[in-house]
Amino acid sequence: MAEEVILLNFWPSMFGMRTMIALKEKEVKYEHREEDLINNKSALLLEMNPIYKKIPVLIHNGKPICESVIQVQYIDEIWSDKNPLLPKDPYQRAQALFWADFIDKKLYVCGRKTWATKGEEQEEAKKEFIGILKTLQSELGDKPYFGGDRFGFLDIVLIGFYSWFPAYQKFGNFSIEPECSKLMDWGKRCMERESVATSLPDPERVGGFILQLKKLYGIE
Amino acid sequence: MAEEVILLNFWPSMFGMRTMIALKEKEVKYEHREEDLINNKSALLLEMNPIYKKIPVLIHNGKPICESVIQVQYIDEIWSDKNPLLPKDPYQRAQALFWADFIDKKLYVCGRKTWATKGEEQEEAKKEFIGILKTLQSELGDKPYFGGDRFGFLDIVLIGFYSWFPAYQKFGNFSIEPECSKLMDWGKRCMERESVATSLPDPERVGGFILQLKKLYGIE
Repeated sequence: MAEEVILLNFWPSMFGMRTMIALKEKEVKYEHREEDLINNKSALLLEMNPIYKKIPVLIHNGKPICESVIQVQYIDEIWSDKNPLLPKDPYQRAQALFWADFIDKKLYVCGRKTWATKGEEQEEAKKEFIGILKTLQSELGDKPYFGGDRFGFLDIVLIGFYSWFPAYQKFGNFSIEPECSKLMDWGKRCMERESVATSLPDPERVGGFILQLKKLYGIE
Repeated sequence: MAEEVILLNFWPSMFGMRTMIALKEKEVKYEHREEDLINNKSALLLEMNPIYKKIPVLIHNGKPICESVIQVQYIDEIWSDKNPLLPKDPYQRAQALFWADFIDKKLYVCGRKTWATKGEEQEEAKKEFIGILKTLQSELGDKPYFGGDRFGFLDIVLIGFYSWFPAYQKFGNFSIEPECSKLMDWGKRCMERESVATSLPDPERVGGFILQLKKLYGIE
């Protein structure tokens, strides 16, 4: 059967990056459609994700799958013949899902605060951000990737944020490296993979995007 | 191998109810340990869930699994020989996970507002609460259960809230039935299952618990 795979995406989204990387790891041919989230969401996006009206949306043979972590799991199940992403062992799998959930609950909101707030709130956010990364770094331990020797699910879930790190640091005026050098090494290691290098945007461009957002929301 | 299964729980938790129901559906013998979350968390809880220090925690042969939706998936994988809970089809599975995530993002926070806020905020919360239930009701459609003819994963994820409905209605002074009669019928249908009936607390007791919380937090 001819597969039709479409990804509705918006380039700075660390969530959309996950789905792109997973598709590339599986060597799935897909059509990338860039959405204009700020000015004009497409009719297709509204139809395919009526609940949240958000990207990324993966459309497989006309049927939508929403939420990036669910998309990565779906991709792993459908294209199971190549590069397994999630651990096979149920316990390891549960652990990987736990950490993916931890990242989704904590990192985006806290990361946003490092550039969208000021004064004490910003100081708190920076401290919390480093704390979250240290927790993740300790979960990584001495392994090259979160799942062990192979690049996989949890690497995919986290790596998109890496392209935002320089901008977080610049606008928050803080440095991740001193306390999280192992995690930064992991990021560099992931960037050596083609699937990652071709899915993450240039950090300079992310910085420019944050400047745009700051203007849009009137944050000085 | 002799299995050791322990559930750290707190009786009013709609999240803990999920794990109890899943274990009962699989006929897994387990030890239930009630936690005193308000006054005194056990050393075991702090050790087994150092990140959130929250129940429910499922401990299987000494190893912790946290987050109820992940626990239900884990239980379904480990005890796969009895009563499958999640859909086998990857697309149906992705949809079920999407709705579970929707419930977790929306229902608890909004439900809490129906009794913990006042005035306009409370009116808004009640309207939103009914809206969320109507969305879920429309996903249920004319099926007896969310997954079709068989009681399964998404029923387990949602049904715990059903034991809180009477208290939400009482303290919020509103009624769910008129707009959500099909969902209420679904709730009654689920309550006919032993796994559900023996895991959900008496709604009167939930009401008493909310009164306790209102006192504790100084909400009149």
